[in-house]
Amino acid sequence: MIRIGIVGATGYTGLELLKLLEHHPAAEIAWLTSENSAGQLFGDVFPVPPALGRHRLVASADADLAAADLVFCCLPHAASQAQVAAARAAGARVVDLSADFRLHDAETYERWYGVPHAQRELLARAVYGLPELHRAEIARADLVANPGCYPTSVILGLAPLARAGWLSGTVIADSKSGVSGAGRKPALKTHFVEANENLSPYSIGRAHRHLVEMEQELRMADGGWQMADGRWQIANTQYPIPDTQYPISVPQWQLIFSPHLAPVSRGMLSTIYVTLPEDATEAAVRERYAALYTGEPFVYLLPAGQVATFGHTVHTNYCAIGLTFVPDAHVLIVTSSIDNLVKGASGQAVQNMNIMFGVAETMGVG
Amino acid sequence: MIRIGIVGATGYTGLELLKLLEHHPAAEIAWLTSENSAGQLFGDVFPVPPALGRHRLVASADADLAAADLVFCCLPHAASQAQVAAARAAGARVVDLSADFRLHDAETYERWYGVPHAQRELLARAVYGLPELHRAEIARADLVANPGCYPTSVILGLAPLARAGWLSGTVIADSKSGVSGAGRKPALKTHFVEANENLSPYSIGRAHRHLVEMEQELRMADGGWQMADGRWQIANTQYPIPDTQYPISVPQWQLIFSPHLAPVSRGMLSTIYVTLPEDATEAAVRERYAALYTGEPFVYLLPAGQVATFGHTVHTNYCAIGLTFVPDAHVLIVTSSIDNLVKGASGQAVQNMNIMFGVAETMGVG
Amino acid sequence: MIRIGIVGATGYTGLELLKLLEHHPAAEIAWLTSENSAGQLFGDVFPVPPALGRHRLVASADADLAAADLVFCCLPHAASQAQVAAARAAGARVVDLSADFRLHDAETYERWYGVPHAQRELLARAVYGLPELHRAEIARADLVANPGCYPTSVILGLAPLARAGWLSGTVIADSKSGVSGAGRKPALKTHFVEANENLSPYSIGRAHRHLVEMEQELRMADGGWQMADGRWQIANTQYPIPDTQYPISVPQWQLIFSPHLAPVSRGMLSTIYVTLPEDATEAAVRERYAALYTGEPFVYLLPAGQVATFGHTVHTNYCAIGLTFVPDAHVLIVTSSIDNLVKGASGQAVQNMNIMFGVAETMGVG
Amino acid sequence: MIRIGIVGATGYTGLELLKLLEHHPAAEIAWLTSENSAGQLFGDVFPVPPALGRHRLVASADADLAAADLVFCCLPHAASQAQVAAARAAGARVVDLSADFRLHDAETYERWYGVPHAQRELLARAVYGLPELHRAEIARADLVANPGCYPTSVILGLAPLARAGWLSGTVIADSKSGVSGAGRKPALKTHFVEANENLSPYSIGRAHRHLVEMEQELRMADGGWQMADGRWQIANTQYPIPDTQYPISVPQWQLIFSPHLAPVSRGMLSTIYVTLPEDATEAAVRERYAALYTGEPFVYLLPAGQVATFGHTVHTNYCAIGLTFVPDAHVLIVTSSIDNLVKGASGQAVQNMNIMFGVAETMGVG
Repeated sequence: MIRIGIVGATGYTGLELLKLLEHHPAAEIAWLTSENSAGQLFGDVFPVPPALGRHRLVASADADLAAADLVFCCLPHAASQAQVAAARAAGARVVDLSADFRLHDAETYERWYGVPHAQRELLARAVYGLPELHRAEIARADLVANPGCYPTSVILGLAPLARAGWLSGTVIADSKSGVSGAGRKPALKTHFVEANENLSPYSIGRAHRHLVEMEQELRMADGGWQMADGRWQIANTQYPIPDTQYPISVPQWQLIFSPHLAPVSRGMLSTIYVTLPEDATEAAVRERYAALYTGEPFVYLLPAGQVATFGHTVHTNYCAIGLTFVPDAHVLIVTSSIDNLVKGASGQAVQNMNIMFGVAETMGVG
Repeated sequence: MIRIGIVGATGYTGLELLKLLEHHPAAEIAWLTSENSAGQLFGDVFPVPPALGRHRLVASADADLAAADLVFCCLPHAASQAQVAAARAAGARVVDLSADFRLHDAETYERWYGVPHAQRELLARAVYGLPELHRAEIARADLVANPGCYPTSVILGLAPLARAGWLSGTVIADSKSGVSGAGRKPALKTHFVEANENLSPYSIGRAHRHLVEMEQELRMADGGWQMADGRWQIANTQYPIPDTQYPISVPQWQLIFSPHLAPVSRGMLSTIYVTLPEDATEAAVRERYAALYTGEPFVYLLPAGQVATFGHTVHTNYCAIGLTFVPDAHVLIVTSSIDNLVKGASGQAVQNMNIMFGVAETMGVG
Repeated sequence: MIRIGIVGATGYTGLELLKLLEHHPAAEIAWLTSENSAGQLFGDVFPVPPALGRHRLVASADADLAAADLVFCCLPHAASQAQVAAARAAGARVVDLSADFRLHDAETYERWYGVPHAQRELLARAVYGLPELHRAEIARADLVANPGCYPTSVILGLAPLARAGWLSGTVIADSKSGVSGAGRKPALKTHFVEANENLSPYSIGRAHRHLVEMEQELRMADGGWQMADGRWQIANTQYPIPDTQYPISVPQWQLIFSPHLAPVSRGMLSTIYVTLPEDATEAAVRERYAALYTGEPFVYLLPAGQVATFGHTVHTNYCAIGLTFVPDAHVLIVTSSIDNLVKGASGQAVQNMNIMFGVAETMGVG
Repeated sequence: MIRIGIVGATGYTGLELLKLLEHHPAAEIAWLTSENSAGQLFGDVFPVPPALGRHRLVASADADLAAADLVFCCLPHAASQAQVAAARAAGARVVDLSADFRLHDAETYERWYGVPHAQRELLARAVYGLPELHRAEIARADLVANPGCYPTSVILGLAPLARAGWLSGTVIADSKSGVSGAGRKPALKTHFVEANENLSPYSIGRAHRHLVEMEQELRMADGGWQMADGRWQIANTQYPIPDTQYPISVPQWQLIFSPHLAPVSRGMLSTIYVTLPEDATEAAVRERYAALYTGEPFVYLLPAGQVATFGHTVHTNYCAIGLTFVPDAHVLIVTSSIDNLVKGASGQAVQNMNIMFGVAETMGVG
């Protein structure tokens, strides 16, 4: 049995993790931490049945790190750095659900997140936990940086094109997310009356932090970042590290990313607009998607004529992808749907755990 | 023109008031206060069109009390007392939307709200602003205590029976409210993800503060409270002031009140169960309701066979009442619907203003 | 492996069944029927991943009855009778999710449902599939009538009182249900714009068909119905078969049942009001609930001071029960929550299957 | 008083019209038609207060056309043609809310709507009822074709750029609409359980009928269509009438339009992506928007840094426009919000009526 510790268990990703792990045949909960609710039962924090509610929360200082084979860290960015380091020091492998270990370049992290990165050695070795792109590295990794929800939907939607070198010009990702993506801490933006019967764009253009995560991974296909000697390095210096807040100097293509808050609890859809090069026929494009995703347990392509909706994936670990070609215009519209709490967070985290520990990849998440 | 000041304008009742008054032919905004947002425009606080957004918020200390003929006070209970007193001292008439002046008995207020009442002289003269029961007193009043939302729906649903002396035994009001009733201050209970796709009872039984407000008004019909010499007094000492937290000693009937939070922004329905006395036939009961409400501009009875729903009244100042008789059982089910922000708050406040200032009662709210 | 056939698989209960059975270690799908969508894939009817979507729907005439050990029948009432009979004739055991086999008395069925009952022999032997009350009979049954959603929440909420003989006078069940309970066939009532931001009572009083189902089961505790020689018979003739549309002549107690449509996809809460007899202390009442439900895998009692909400059980097979005592009033408020599609339909159906086939009761539903 | 007839009054646009007109000081209802509900009261069809509910519906054959100065026609496309012709023949002026008179070119209409246009003479003289672009023509018109909801949001969002000749390349409008836009007739797509907690793209690319409406109006700025001698004619033959289903042959720019169904009752947002020409600076762009919309009663520009949301305009006749410039990328993101039932339908219809009859443009809609 994989013994599991969860740091920061009282948010929505913690809840979702616990629900998944409860039925996971190869995992067992060792401890759950919460600074604010230490001493309380999990059932005091969420309205859950006794099987989940019986777990008692402890302060992170009181967590027995040695009792965990794997630590899921569900803290906000910045707060995650030290906890991840502590868990690694104690010998546990770690899946970190924050943004702290996703960007290979520490300067880029510091510029976008506005805080120092104090764990650069760990950062250099952390693996970006998107199994469809990095399965082999994940299997060997001691520290996996679980992708953000928006990046998961956009990267999976564009990776076949990136690998083919078919991204060019301005690529637009118009994304819509459920409110749970904003976390459980009460705020005006997530007040029921403000979010209900509403739909709001925010941080549109090139302003949202998830943008750099998308560009790092999509440019990797072109040789941007590669792991060598257990560290991430830039292989192709033609693609410089972005060095302004709005790094659009890379010649071939740039990404515009517009997140919207939608009045649902969970769900995510990215509607992505790409101008295809002349030689990228519909058949050739479909082939590229099939080549990358055939055999993938959690990505499926919709038949021609269908588009992805929230409903295709909500409460599952799937990513559903629809491809709509606009006749004559050489424009491809990719619709890419995930559940932001499952494939966009906790489900993918368990999928990563399965890969890391060599059990069936779909166990407990399929 | 009635010059209007609004104290505490940045909550949902303030917003709703401003929307109503914007189109009110006899009213004009003099000033709006907010302690937290003083100096900002109303449009910085709410996504409203320029006609509403142009108003600048001031701290209450900077409000020119003398410039207002009528002050609407939209503060939470306790905070309202001093502001109402200040406005009255400056000569303005006041409609207070908090609970501070609704209960005639100061001890009852202090017991249920857990704070002292520092304005007892004002309290003794304040009129409970339910026009259907107290229209004449409202017209003459300098201080009107605008009813709570739940009490409005329950009192209007039961008043004809109370007046007929037809309440007996245990009367059950199972009420459902939209989330805006909980105010705009972010809290876990009103977080979108907690309230959405959920429905939650709370403070059920005899625990919610609105209960005493309902009992005060429904017992008044039996002679419980009457105004004499400009002050409220108990006329019929058979009905003592409730003196425990759960005052159920009054012989004839008791009220069980169960509020539920429903996943909508606005709307309220009370489903009320009354065991009728033998002599109260369906025809006689319908007659009593018709007698009280015929001619009322904002209360309407549904035809036999229909029940009230949120949809009957949302975004209006109406109360819709359905009467369902359960054959043989001598049980009447009253369904009483209002919009909690309109008839349950700001619409009723404007209706009261209209009565106080002698303009058409429906002006700007119909 | 238990080979499964599903008749009428394209409604919400069929979808939920398929989702549950997909991960059930002891079951495998043999066939799915649909008259309207025969020939299509399940994925053409619902936005589901390929693992579910690959199943091809057949007309019921083309279903290989002999290939199924267990048939789940998900048709509307009346339509279910013949299909259940056919499946039984072919030797399959059956869990019927319609109302056709829930009422032991055929005349009562015909009066309330307005259609003849053509399978009276089967009816007499069908077992009401509420495991908490009839586990032993279910284990032996060839035909299980899966309970209605409202009855599940109300019967579980009241059974301990009924068994203790503590029901008296008027018992009120004010229930709130998600919209999926109304089925997938489009109708004005379930149109998004009509149901959204709305909450509507319907068929309140003693008018809803689920009422007789509740009374049958709750009176059984008093000896109303018992199985003898494999058939249901009235053991205690003091409780006559109800013989009017509003059968309230039974002396001890009567039930008032008021369903409400709530603007959520799934979830159900019954807020139940009972006047307790003098000798039923809070401690004694809690003891009775604990006695019946301790050890039950899918019913849990909330600690004193807590109430059940939709959130306690949605997407699970649990029933959560809160007990709120109103001081001095001898009134108990029971809050009983289930997911109408899981414990109120498909989850309970799988639980029944597990009991019938002798596998772990929680398998695939826990 | 303007005497009003409404043809097809029992849809959502009819309901919204009646609510607006009820309080309109210069209008009075003469008659309402409904083929399906003829003989019933409006209150039998919608849960409305008596003031609205008292109107009796008549079959269109029984409507006294001569008693109406203005007829609002709220039928679906195709059905509208004959009713509009009848009203015009009887001398009434008409605002038609269907698509039947919006496209100046009959062949384009027939190609996109798949039905013949039998009223070509009326079509040639109908005015597209977007006051911000055609106020003078509307004032003189006998027949106004009220714009579609999506076109209203997109055209208002792009008109200043079109007039400046600053549209080029691929312009993307990613639009999100509330469910009421799909009409009141029950369908699977608008079933609560299908639409709730969901968000679905549909007819994306160049497939939705509203696309041609947008292009007609946006190209008019370039001289595409002009009224001469009371008829619409193509002034600039450089812009040919689109002659394929996906008419993208016009050299300068093409529109990609992707509607999405959002889980709200009402509201609409278009997020529009435009690549600006080099000479279009942020200041210059803002100037163009200000030039067109300053003084407009129902369009307002948001301050720099703000984006439009559903909440900015819901339940109002406003269009709110936000302009977000993406630094260095020469990309402008326009966020344009309206209430699909008000500015997108009935509110704009009343605004048009006000213009046609020479009363204050904001009367009853402000």
